[in-house]
Amino acid sequence: MSKPSIPKGTRDFGPVIVRKRNYIFQTIRQVFELYGFQPLETPAMENLSTLTGKYGDEGDQLMFKVLNNGNIFEKAEKATNTRELVAAVSEKALRYDLTIPFARFVVMNQNDIALPFKRYQMQPVWRADNPQRGRYREFYQCDADVVGSNSLVNEVELLLIYDAVFTSLGLAGVELRVNNRKILSGLAEVIGKQELLTDITISIDKLDKIGAEGVRKELSDRGLSDADINTIEKFLTIGGTNEEKLNQLAELLQSSATGLKGIEELKFVLNSGLTTFNNEPIIDVTLARGLNYYTGMIVEVKAPATVKMGSIGGGGRYDDLTGLFGLKGISGVGISFGVDRIYDVLEELNLFPETAQQSTKVIFLNLGEANAVAAFKHVQALRAKGIAAEIYPESAKMDKQMKYANKRGIPYVAIIGESELLENNVSVKNLTTGQQEKVAGADVVNYNF
Amino acid sequence: MSKPSIPKGTRDFGPVIVRKRNYIFQTIRQVFELYGFQPLETPAMENLSTLTGKYGDEGDQLMFKVLNNGNIFEKAEKATNTRELVAAVSEKALRYDLTIPFARFVVMNQNDIALPFKRYQMQPVWRADNPQRGRYREFYQCDADVVGSNSLVNEVELLLIYDAVFTSLGLAGVELRVNNRKILSGLAEVIGKQELLTDITISIDKLDKIGAEGVRKELSDRGLSDADINTIEKFLTIGGTNEEKLNQLAELLQSSATGLKGIEELKFVLNSGLTTFNNEPIIDVTLARGLNYYTGMIVEVKAPATVKMGSIGGGGRYDDLTGLFGLKGISGVGISFGVDRIYDVLEELNLFPETAQQSTKVIFLNLGEANAVAAFKHVQALRAKGIAAEIYPESAKMDKQMKYANKRGIPYVAIIGESELLENNVSVKNLTTGQQEKVAGADVVNYNF
Repeated sequence: MSKPSIPKGTRDFGPVIVRKRNYIFQTIRQVFELYGFQPLETPAMENLSTLTGKYGDEGDQLMFKVLNNGNIFEKAEKATNTRELVAAVSEKALRYDLTIPFARFVVMNQNDIALPFKRYQMQPVWRADNPQRGRYREFYQCDADVVGSNSLVNEVELLLIYDAVFTSLGLAGVELRVNNRKILSGLAEVIGKQELLTDITISIDKLDKIGAEGVRKELSDRGLSDADINTIEKFLTIGGTNEEKLNQLAELLQSSATGLKGIEELKFVLNSGLTTFNNEPIIDVTLARGLNYYTGMIVEVKAPATVKMGSIGGGGRYDDLTGLFGLKGISGVGISFGVDRIYDVLEELNLFPETAQQSTKVIFLNLGEANAVAAFKHVQALRAKGIAAEIYPESAKMDKQMKYANKRGIPYVAIIGESELLENNVSVKNLTTGQQEKVAGADVVNYNF
Repeated sequence: MSKPSIPKGTRDFGPVIVRKRNYIFQTIRQVFELYGFQPLETPAMENLSTLTGKYGDEGDQLMFKVLNNGNIFEKAEKATNTRELVAAVSEKALRYDLTIPFARFVVMNQNDIALPFKRYQMQPVWRADNPQRGRYREFYQCDADVVGSNSLVNEVELLLIYDAVFTSLGLAGVELRVNNRKILSGLAEVIGKQELLTDITISIDKLDKIGAEGVRKELSDRGLSDADINTIEKFLTIGGTNEEKLNQLAELLQSSATGLKGIEELKFVLNSGLTTFNNEPIIDVTLARGLNYYTGMIVEVKAPATVKMGSIGGGGRYDDLTGLFGLKGISGVGISFGVDRIYDVLEELNLFPETAQQSTKVIFLNLGEANAVAAFKHVQALRAKGIAAEIYPESAKMDKQMKYANKRGIPYVAIIGESELLENNVSVKNLTTGQQEKVAGADVVNYNF
């Protein structure tokens, strides 16, 4: 028999990790709910007709397709290459993200949904990416989106959600970087190369990785003139406070109506007068975000600089997502939390609270039949009070049972030996301090485990 | 563009349903935790080598296999039938239940796990069954198992968990039916046909569906004599109180050591002296449960008789599950909750509490820029107090905004019109009663929404 294993890039989550992950999910869920977002869950499998072509060629490659059941051999025989074979034997794939299923849901349920529809969704997605540190083939996404409202109040609220979640997680030093796709469009307009907007965006997106010189070279390779590149470099060096950046942008993009609109939107998001932020968002004109469907504000969350982690969240406004499924003219804006990376950051900074790691508070040893009966009454009384308690299920050597309690990390052991049974009390041992005390039987249920 | 759809037998869960389902999961999770069970999550995909052959031929057929990525054409070409083709192009499948992945996890992590290991797991599973009312291709399982302990205290605790969960859900009239596989073995022993144990079990399992006459015919077809069948019929008509049933069993199975052991186990589970049940478990000698791996107690939960639903949970003891992966001699016992059916039962009996359906308590209308600024301050103050509140994101006709609040089912609307803005107060309208009152600005945060 071969040693069992799990598929490459997937993970088992044991008890300690599940509890910590649930603490993150619960914190995010609470904030989503406070802001009026509604939970949605969609199936793990979607029809290929829903997913194909929505994530580019790479996405189509990286999707996990599901084999049709039944007799697939005949259909497969007619295929002359991999593409035809896949089409012949599969019609479903695993969810690749939560955004396309959301758009699909909105279109299917458009008559029942009250717009604006504010939904959140926290479910796993699957991608056949090459696994590496921090990149998995099965991982959770955690999204909040509003569709059916053009108001920038939504952008403000989504930034407030980031602010509230990271404050609630005790994660200081997070940076909320914002930009606006219309500003990038404005830049392309100003240099008169609107058709190269995507090329410009892609190159700028790489600034962090390849540096200013690399960007210059890429832009040149993509057909931009020295004068164009100089304008772009001027754009990329815009600095100072948010207000100073907005002023420099206004000057540089004054000839572009689109660019000025982007500046105006950014101004509102940052200075709506509606609220203040714990972590003031920072304008980052070099922020581009890869996804093509963004059309307005874009946002990215950077982990605290002390942790080498990069982005732990991001999002933006997209103007026509449901159009992919035939429902035109519905604008949306959304954000996403990178739960796996947030987990790593909280772990590295030791920020998981005790409560996120609590399970059984006390285990009663099992030292014989009559002793177990007495112990079980205490166990049930504690459970009725909401305190997680256990009894070792079989009568075994005390040493073995103590070792078990230690290995499990249970903080208290309760002992009813012969004398305790006679005296109707319980010896309670704190495994952290090693201290032991006798507690009267009637007081056990009120003991501060 | 074709109308988007979802795969056959799968479901989207909108906000109202997700909340109610989470109420069920949360109730079960709380009880699992109180009893010292630890959460585990395993990947959606398992290697085929882990799953194949574990669920019988039918299971192998109904598994959703996942296509390998990359160039699969060449390998596929060599296949001469469906079975070979599937083997050539896939090496993973979607989880078919939670028990085999659990056994796989225990074997892979045997050096780190403290035995007895009490784990719970609540995750979806996938089966390509023919969808019908109450049967889906994606559905949640919700399991608690203990491995590494032979003690019947575990059986008692698992029955208590059923008892606690259904009590907590307010579901009266649930029946906990128990039996023991050793009693069924004993029956086969008594009639001297041990080799036909599985046939006998399968026939008895159908009693509900095909009646006594049908069982008699099946048993005869399976090669049992009239004398054998008479003994089995005597067995099946055992009745009365639990004690009377145990006495009749003891008489009928007196020549079988295995049968007597089963009776003794059942006696302990029902009369351990450790505890009492809200819903006393009932012995049902006709309870067989299909799965072959059970070896001791078996249990099934029947929905209240007023609801036509049948089984809403079940489980039992199995003696060698991890043996499938090379780790011998580890006994286990577990139970499972049928969440989809429990949902239907609670819905039919109108047992979901108000709190399971709560989301946004109040929405502030958006009646202009200055009004929105005033409203937003209240919204943020309410959220800071843990009360879910919203503002309509854009200034729109009051009528449209009221309709939105109604469609969303939000119980209160808060209005800051011109006079409220001047007087620094808020008009609060209860959409259930239609009553409206003015609330001073400073008191809004303490209003009983």
